[in-house]
Amino acid sequence: MQIEFLGTGAGSPGKFRNVSSLALRLLEERNSIWLFDAGEGTQQQILRTTIKPRKIDKIFITHLHGDHIFGLPGLLSSRSFQGGNEKLTIYGPRGIRNFVLTSLKVSETKLSYYIDFVELSDGGEIFKDNKFTVYAEHLDHKIETFGYRVVEHDHQGELLVDKLRDDQIPSGPIYGQIKAGKTVTLPDGRKIDGHDYIGHAQKGRIVTILGDTRKTANSYKLAQNADVLVHESTFAKDEATMAHSYYHSTNVQAATIAKESHVGRLLLNHISARYNGKLAHELEKQAQAVFKNAKVVKDFDLIDIPFDKERH
Amino acid sequence: MQIEFLGTGAGSPGKFRNVSSLALRLLEERNSIWLFDAGEGTQQQILRTTIKPRKIDKIFITHLHGDHIFGLPGLLSSRSFQGGNEKLTIYGPRGIRNFVLTSLKVSETKLSYYIDFVELSDGGEIFKDNKFTVYAEHLDHKIETFGYRVVEHDHQGELLVDKLRDDQIPSGPIYGQIKAGKTVTLPDGRKIDGHDYIGHAQKGRIVTILGDTRKTANSYKLAQNADVLVHESTFAKDEATMAHSYYHSTNVQAATIAKESHVGRLLLNHISARYNGKLAHELEKQAQAVFKNAKVVKDFDLIDIPFDKERH
Ligand SMILES: [Zn+2]
Ligand SMILES: [Zn+2]
Repeated sequence: MQIEFLGTGAGSPGKFRNVSSLALRLLEERNSIWLFDAGEGTQQQILRTTIKPRKIDKIFITHLHGDHIFGLPGLLSSRSFQGGNEKLTIYGPRGIRNFVLTSLKVSETKLSYYIDFVELSDGGEIFKDNKFTVYAEHLDHKIETFGYRVVEHDHQGELLVDKLRDDQIPSGPIYGQIKAGKTVTLPDGRKIDGHDYIGHAQKGRIVTILGDTRKTANSYKLAQNADVLVHESTFAKDEATMAHSYYHSTNVQAATIAKESHVGRLLLNHISARYNGKLAHELEKQAQAVFKNAKVVKDFDLIDIPFDKERH
Repeated sequence: MQIEFLGTGAGSPGKFRNVSSLALRLLEERNSIWLFDAGEGTQQQILRTTIKPRKIDKIFITHLHGDHIFGLPGLLSSRSFQGGNEKLTIYGPRGIRNFVLTSLKVSETKLSYYIDFVELSDGGEIFKDNKFTVYAEHLDHKIETFGYRVVEHDHQGELLVDKLRDDQIPSGPIYGQIKAGKTVTLPDGRKIDGHDYIGHAQKGRIVTILGDTRKTANSYKLAQNADVLVHESTFAKDEATMAHSYYHSTNVQAATIAKESHVGRLLLNHISARYNGKLAHELEKQAQAVFKNAKVVKDFDLIDIPFDKERH
C-alpha cells in the first residue's frame, strides 16, 4: 500500500505542481489502484509513473471544482484505448455523472467498459468488501465536498493447521475453540492454549484523504487514528482568516487535526503556487511545530504505508 | 505571424507528443493569439511557452473528439484566473457550447469574461475584420469536422504624403487619383505617375489549418495557394487503406494536396505514437518525395510565416 501523488497544486496547474490527483496503490492488497480526484493532465502525469490506467478500478472525487475533475474524461478515454475492459466505479458528489456522460457523448467516445456512478448525498459507508471499507463524510468547502476514509480490515490470525497436525491434534469442532484462542482439553488429556496455534494477527491500515475544506468536525471524524492523513494546505499559519473566506485550510489547522486525531503521519497537499521551493519548506516547518510527522508532498512523491508494528 | 505547436500527437497523449493544439500567433498583426483545438493539457503546454492565455481571443475547434477539446474547460478557467477580461469567441461544430457550458456549470466556474459561441453548420466565411478573413469548410472525418483558412488581407500601398509635400504637390481630390496609380497633370503643368507616390504593397498571407480528415475536395479548396498548410499525418505512405477506414490521412495524401494546391509549406501534425524518433523522420522523407517543403512538426516547434517576397 502506497500513495503516489500525481498533482499537489491548488487551483491552476503551475510549472512545478499539477492540479489535484493521487493514487492509492493497492497492488499487493487487491491488484488494483484507487484514484482520488483527477485534475486536468492526470493521465499525462500517470504516463510518468508505473501506473496502468486499466488497473484503476475506483475513482473517488472529493468535489467538482475544475482542478479536481477536468482530467477525468481524458483518463477514462485512455483507459479504454489502452485495453481496460473491467468495470470502473466513480464515487463523488451529485453532478459527476452529468459531467462525465456529457463529455463522453459530445466527443462520441465509446468506452470498452462499464462505469458505475455512485453519487453521494449523505455520509457513511460507501463501499465494503472482505478487505476494505470506505467511508465518506461531508466537508466544508464552497461547493459540496467529501472526504474519504479507507479502512483496511484487521487481519485475523490464521489457524496453523500444519502445526496442529504435527502435534497430532485431531480435527473437529475443537478447531473453532482453538481459533478463538481458548484453552482446551484434548481427548487424550493434554491441555493446549489456542494462542499457540494462531498465526500473527495484524491491525489493518487506515488512510484518510480529504478534499478542499475548512477545518471542520468531520475532518476529525474521518481522520481518527488514521495511519496517514492527506490534508490540503492551501494557506500558511498566519492566513487563517483568508483560508476561511476562501473555504480552505492552513497548514497549522491541518496539523492540529492530525495531532488531535492521533494520526500516524500527515501529508500536506493542494499547495498554492505562492509557496514554491523554500516557501514550501517553511509551510512544512510550521506544520511540524504542531505535529512532528508532517510532510509537504510534491508531484510524484511515493509514500509507503507500512503496517504499524505497535498496533498489531 | 507564427505558428506554435502545442500538441502534435494523435488520439492519446504520449511521452513525446501531447494531444492536439496549436497557436497562431498574431501579436504583431493584432496583438492577439488564435488557438486551434485544445486537447487535454493544452494549458500546461502553454505554461512552457511565452503565450499569455488572456491574449487568446479566438479558439477554433476542428471537431469534438476528446483529444481536441478536453483541455478547453481548464484553459478557459485559467484564462479567467489569470486576469483575462476580454470577450473570447469559440468557433466549432455543434455541441461545443454544450460541452463547455456543462463543464463550467458542474464545476461552478464563473468566468471573468464573456464567451461568444459560433457553432458552425455550413462552410463559408465565418469571420472578417479589416485585416483578416477566416473561412471554414467541412472535412471528412468520423465526426463533424471543419478545416479553417485564415486569409490576411493584402496590404494596399499607402499614399506617401511626405513625398507629395516635398515635391510641392497640393492636396485635394487629386490625391485620390494619385493613390489609384493614375498619371495626373498638376495645376502647374507637371505630369506625375501616381505609382511614384504609393508605398510598397504586400500580398497578405494565407494559413490553412485542417482537422482530422480523409483526403477530400474541401482540403484542396481550403489549401489553395496557402503560404502554410497544417495537415494531419496519422498514417504512413503504405497505410492508405487503414487511413481511410479510420477517417484519417497518410503523409503522402497530405503532400499531394500541398503540391496540387500550390502551397508554400506543409507542416504535418497529428502524428501517431507508432511514429517516434527515426520513424517520424521517415514519415517526413516520404512526404518530401512528393512535396519538398514538408516538415513533421514536434511539440513547441515555432514556425515563422514571413511575407512571400515573390508574391507582393
Ligand atoms: Zn476546490
Ligand atoms: Zn479525430
